[in-house]
Amino acid sequence: MKSKQLLYLGLFLFPNLLQAQSNLIQYVKPLIGTARMGHTFPGATVPFGAVQLSPDTDTIPYAMNGKYNGDVYKYCAGYQYDDPTIVGFSHTHFSGTGHSDLGDILVMPTQGKVQLNPGTADRPQDGYRSPYSHSNEVAEANYYKVLLDKHQIKAEMTTTSRVGIHRYTFPKSDASHLILDLTAGIYNYEAKNVWTVVRVLNDSTIVGYRQTNGWARTRTVYFAIKTSKAFKNYGAKYEDAKQVYAGFWRKFDQKNNFPDLAAHQIKMNLDFDTKDGEEVLMKVALSPVSMKNALANMEHEAPDWNFENYVKAGQKSWEQELNKVQVDMLNKEDLINFYTAMYHASLMPTVYMDVNGEYKGLDQEVHQAKGFTNYTSFSLWDTFRAFHPLMNLINPTRNADMVSSMMAHYDQSVLKMLPIWSHYANDNWCMSGYHSVSVVVDAILKGVYKGDAEAALAACVQTANARKYEGIGSYIDLGYVQDEISGTSVSNTLEYAYDDWCIAQLAKKLGKDDIYKDFIKRASNWKNVYDHSIGFMRPKDAKGIFRSKFDALETHGQGFIEGNTWNYSLYVPHQPVAMMEMMGGPKKLENYLDSLFTMELPDKYFEHTEDITRDGIIGNYVHGNEPSHHVAYLYNQTASPWKTQARVRQIIRNQYHNGHAGLGGNDDCGQMSAWYLFTALGFYPVAPGDDAYWIGSPLVKSAKINLENGKTITIDVKNQSEKNVYVKKVSLNGQPLAGLKLSYAAIMNGGALQFEMTDKPGK
Amino acid sequence: MKSKQLLYLGLFLFPNLLQAQSNLIQYVKPLIGTARMGHTFPGATVPFGAVQLSPDTDTIPYAMNGKYNGDVYKYCAGYQYDDPTIVGFSHTHFSGTGHSDLGDILVMPTQGKVQLNPGTADRPQDGYRSPYSHSNEVAEANYYKVLLDKHQIKAEMTTTSRVGIHRYTFPKSDASHLILDLTAGIYNYEAKNVWTVVRVLNDSTIVGYRQTNGWARTRTVYFAIKTSKAFKNYGAKYEDAKQVYAGFWRKFDQKNNFPDLAAHQIKMNLDFDTKDGEEVLMKVALSPVSMKNALANMEHEAPDWNFENYVKAGQKSWEQELNKVQVDMLNKEDLINFYTAMYHASLMPTVYMDVNGEYKGLDQEVHQAKGFTNYTSFSLWDTFRAFHPLMNLINPTRNADMVSSMMAHYDQSVLKMLPIWSHYANDNWCMSGYHSVSVVVDAILKGVYKGDAEAALAACVQTANARKYEGIGSYIDLGYVQDEISGTSVSNTLEYAYDDWCIAQLAKKLGKDDIYKDFIKRASNWKNVYDHSIGFMRPKDAKGIFRSKFDALETHGQGFIEGNTWNYSLYVPHQPVAMMEMMGGPKKLENYLDSLFTMELPDKYFEHTEDITRDGIIGNYVHGNEPSHHVAYLYNQTASPWKTQARVRQIIRNQYHNGHAGLGGNDDCGQMSAWYLFTALGFYPVAPGDDAYWIGSPLVKSAKINLENGKTITIDVKNQSEKNVYVKKVSLNGQPLAGLKLSYAAIMNGGALQFEMTDKPGK
Repeated sequence: MKSKQLLYLGLFLFPNLLQAQSNLIQYVKPLIGTARMGHTFPGATVPFGAVQLSPDTDTIPYAMNGKYNGDVYKYCAGYQYDDPTIVGFSHTHFSGTGHSDLGDILVMPTQGKVQLNPGTADRPQDGYRSPYSHSNEVAEANYYKVLLDKHQIKAEMTTTSRVGIHRYTFPKSDASHLILDLTAGIYNYEAKNVWTVVRVLNDSTIVGYRQTNGWARTRTVYFAIKTSKAFKNYGAKYEDAKQVYAGFWRKFDQKNNFPDLAAHQIKMNLDFDTKDGEEVLMKVALSPVSMKNALANMEHEAPDWNFENYVKAGQKSWEQELNKVQVDMLNKEDLINFYTAMYHASLMPTVYMDVNGEYKGLDQEVHQAKGFTNYTSFSLWDTFRAFHPLMNLINPTRNADMVSSMMAHYDQSVLKMLPIWSHYANDNWCMSGYHSVSVVVDAILKGVYKGDAEAALAACVQTANARKYEGIGSYIDLGYVQDEISGTSVSNTLEYAYDDWCIAQLAKKLGKDDIYKDFIKRASNWKNVYDHSIGFMRPKDAKGIFRSKFDALETHGQGFIEGNTWNYSLYVPHQPVAMMEMMGGPKKLENYLDSLFTMELPDKYFEHTEDITRDGIIGNYVHGNEPSHHVAYLYNQTASPWKTQARVRQIIRNQYHNGHAGLGGNDDCGQMSAWYLFTALGFYPVAPGDDAYWIGSPLVKSAKINLENGKTITIDVKNQSEKNVYVKKVSLNGQPLAGLKLSYAAIMNGGALQFEMTDKPGK
Repeated sequence: MKSKQLLYLGLFLFPNLLQAQSNLIQYVKPLIGTARMGHTFPGATVPFGAVQLSPDTDTIPYAMNGKYNGDVYKYCAGYQYDDPTIVGFSHTHFSGTGHSDLGDILVMPTQGKVQLNPGTADRPQDGYRSPYSHSNEVAEANYYKVLLDKHQIKAEMTTTSRVGIHRYTFPKSDASHLILDLTAGIYNYEAKNVWTVVRVLNDSTIVGYRQTNGWARTRTVYFAIKTSKAFKNYGAKYEDAKQVYAGFWRKFDQKNNFPDLAAHQIKMNLDFDTKDGEEVLMKVALSPVSMKNALANMEHEAPDWNFENYVKAGQKSWEQELNKVQVDMLNKEDLINFYTAMYHASLMPTVYMDVNGEYKGLDQEVHQAKGFTNYTSFSLWDTFRAFHPLMNLINPTRNADMVSSMMAHYDQSVLKMLPIWSHYANDNWCMSGYHSVSVVVDAILKGVYKGDAEAALAACVQTANARKYEGIGSYIDLGYVQDEISGTSVSNTLEYAYDDWCIAQLAKKLGKDDIYKDFIKRASNWKNVYDHSIGFMRPKDAKGIFRSKFDALETHGQGFIEGNTWNYSLYVPHQPVAMMEMMGGPKKLENYLDSLFTMELPDKYFEHTEDITRDGIIGNYVHGNEPSHHVAYLYNQTASPWKTQARVRQIIRNQYHNGHAGLGGNDDCGQMSAWYLFTALGFYPVAPGDDAYWIGSPLVKSAKINLENGKTITIDVKNQSEKNVYVKKVSLNGQPLAGLKLSYAAIMNGGALQFEMTDKPGK
């Protein structure tokens, strides 16, 4: 289908596009979302790379007594744009999460007296951290640069998948240092570092590992470090000498040039003489398995010291990734929003496997990935909604590997559960539902995952029957999670019901009638928490009595997670018609949605809302959290689909901006960005597991999606403008779309999707 | 050579021997040395087995501030005969050490209310520990049995190399338990457990690991457990909930039947219904590498539940081991001493490798042992003296593997040093010298180790040039370790000089003249700390001035480790003639030795002597520590070799007894026992690295050593009796021995060693 004719058509239809094709990474602005609640990181990485080498401006001081000192959620990505100092550059970062764990292997260049403590933002002179200025900062895909003001050291970063490459340009000094702080971490606290080992193999090679307890309960990051120049001297400090049994290691001077270190808390200084303007490079390779694998990863991916080549190679891979969707848009700001969203939707999950195929499994054993690339960091409560569907569209092979990774996780799980929120050979059990089920089912039904479907179904069923987890036992017995045993009984019930519907779809396809019957029944469990008397989902106790004291506007303590019942009552993505009927029909739903988007709420209802700012909200619609991501599309089944079109354009304009505070809430591992990308292209997967995309209002002027199967989808939007947000006509390959829906199957056959826009709502 | 003729000769010469041959393990009494300072363990193990499954009666409460609570050295082997209670049965034990680290995976059967704390010896009712009676205790090679009085539970233990097999016979109860205390350990303290993971795979299978910091700085023991009967229920307790980030794991009830546990400190109870007299068996396999390897070890070595077969198989391997030396002795007590010594000299080092050949290296990486069995726990300051020479005689293949293990350790060492005191992928740097050099050189010169001799020499040289270790830099620069930088400057100097002589011997053999010259010069460094003015070795400062305040009788603070200068001044095993000359000739040496053995010292000189009791001392001769082990043989080069003969018989009679307190000092990983065995056979390796054994006075009536090369040595002692301690004649294959020496080479050719004894000293 990639005929010359089609290519010619492309040239004709999208005259502005060609320019973009040649250099899409120019539109990637990693600093977007780094201020306030976006929780993105500005540093260097390659698509889905194992290493995210990025500056950290502070960490969350988390106290073990459950009390937090400071802003709980501020430093999930390690960097906050408004901070005045950089602490150092570490190698692992989540993108857009509301919690964290990483920030491993922090490196900082300094000069003069060795300082092994970071100091504070107020008094950077007391530590190794440095003030910096955004005017001296450059953040590109796979390249980050900043001038560290304290000692006028230029810091540059790039990566390969498993290796971070640092280039520091020093002023002249006989006391230049690279500080290696292995105690540093995001969400840090005193007992976080379980154990640390460092072995200095020679005057320019260090290996070791950092083992932590935290969000990931048992996590070990192995590393290998090489410097381009031999260090003339090195020092080490055990921060916790009292806790470590020193024994006869006291025979050695372990502080100076001692190559064999192990303790809970280790910091090191590598010392150099530098000429003025001398560059010292450092490569840091990571491994989930061993120090020798980290070394092998480095040898394989980053054998030499050609910094520019690593930048170029990584940027080339970004260019390839971004080129999967070529768009023309109304203005450059939109191009930046679009490609930065693509960038943010190509960071996580991350590769979690060495070049030799080995990885650490959930069972804490070393495994060999056979026939797939193993990924980690699945924020599934977020990403099942639009991120994984996006992968099915533009990255099916990766998504198949992600499903394989989930299946491997399941096989390694002693609880016999697919991942909930898994990272680094752990599950942290964050958020609710069992939404890997949605991802697995959707990938199988769409033909993306070609592994053993029956085994996958068994894994889904087993997960859905994990009675001990989050009220599932109650859910199975009563048809809903009873209020008494869960603070999020209603959202759990709703999410389980959706997931159960997914399982039913897969069972149906595989001809497993018993399973289908069981789970299609469970799929209706959302009805059991709907209180007709108030027209909302509402917590219910074991006796079937709804909770008496209930606030439909309040987010906290009402039986929901990250949302109030106004938003959550719409969470029946798999049975939206039945939901609408339950609510009283199309007009009632339309009125409900109108109210949701327009009501004016006092601030008090948002004071404790997590992960978003006031910006993330339109009326009572909360876009900054995920439960409502499908909501604006629900007008499609009322008499007023034009309201979907208006709302999605409004949300895009309201929630996605260029600029450091450009994201209204946590990007959540690409879910917020994936919503943007689908919506900007004109359609959205309301219920993954279903074949249908729902039509919204495209923001692009035109687009070309280069499918992995070699086919292409072109999207042409006639009369696109800021005002023309309404869809007058939409057709696929010349045929008008029925019911404002578009099937995945149709899209994967390639062809031309054509919109005609107008400023008149299609009432 | 094993001709019928020789066999017939054997029958004729050793009429009492045949009986012994058929059942030698009857003479093994594992309880010998378990009272007071022997520090042996009474539990079950196979020769050099990876698992030592043994009862622990308490542990050393060691405080991180360096202050000990209680008796520092009492519980190195976990068991003290005089203790009234048993805490539980753990799987790893050193034999005869003066420090410890092990006691991993403690199991205890109980009934009634679940108690997860051990309680105290005074109040066993407050915990899971139980009183017991020695009248209900049986300790054999690879079999241990005891009745636990508290609940009348019979406990039986046996092992394969990597698997401990427990058999508990319970009274009837619906609340029978197996307590699994993963916080327990020998030399325990609060922060010792770095991390612990437990995964309950099904109702009768558990895997996990225990990671500790201690004498071994970074040590992880992986385990797999199976029970013969499904547990009906299980519970877990995190002892340190406050230190662990619980996060969303709080969603689960982690205390009851929760299979996925990780924390610093974990204890568990496995619950059973038992009929009266019901046996519940448990198998616990260990691995240095992984949980799956532990499972594989179990499947390979202990696939079924036939307890008796495991006892028999292990006892058969003991019988084979003991049959390497068949002896006839004056009485049964001597037979018990002899074969118990053989038993104690066949416990350590231990196999440290899975059945698939994988092991954890010093570099904390997983390695595959190629062509050798990897061993760990090398207490080299002790064992280079007689234990490894004994291995060269009766276990050369094992000793070659031990040298290979040392070479692998060296290859993995970032400090480029052969082991000092290594166990479990660590070096704990205990004691002085670099005596692996002695073992390596002796094994090469004797043709035992057939690996790369040049690489071995390079490793020895590199180790001897580790300037940063224990004053080696000073030793190289000054010819002695200067007093200012080491509390044991003199003993270090003496031991280095001996080790250097060993290196010189290997260099000579390999034609490495430069190395030979360098190290034969260093071999004389003992002369540099000899103070002619007082006739003793004495600490000397960097300026060459001997320390002014010096007590030749005091052990502590005088520049020596575990010995005073009276003993240490004789520590020139490689150049005894030169030493004698330095001391003033044969008569002076004889007088010196006479004084050593006969002087009467006040108790104060022994109050702080480590690792021995007053029993371990004859005059000022300290047999309970190792530095003097060659001393009694030194009379051989005076005019009075008969005094050697008298003294060694005296020492044997004084220091080695049947009975629980039968050892006068720590058995030190078989070194004390190896001294006994050589001495009882009539010869001793005064200077390993030298081919010569020095003749003493045999205790055996006759002996037959079955060499690995298929040849045999018979030892016939004519006129042997308690009184006839003097050697009138000694010949090998009919030829009188020259100079009261016997060469290894001659022995390995097989033949007959004949002694004729008398009660008249050969003045």
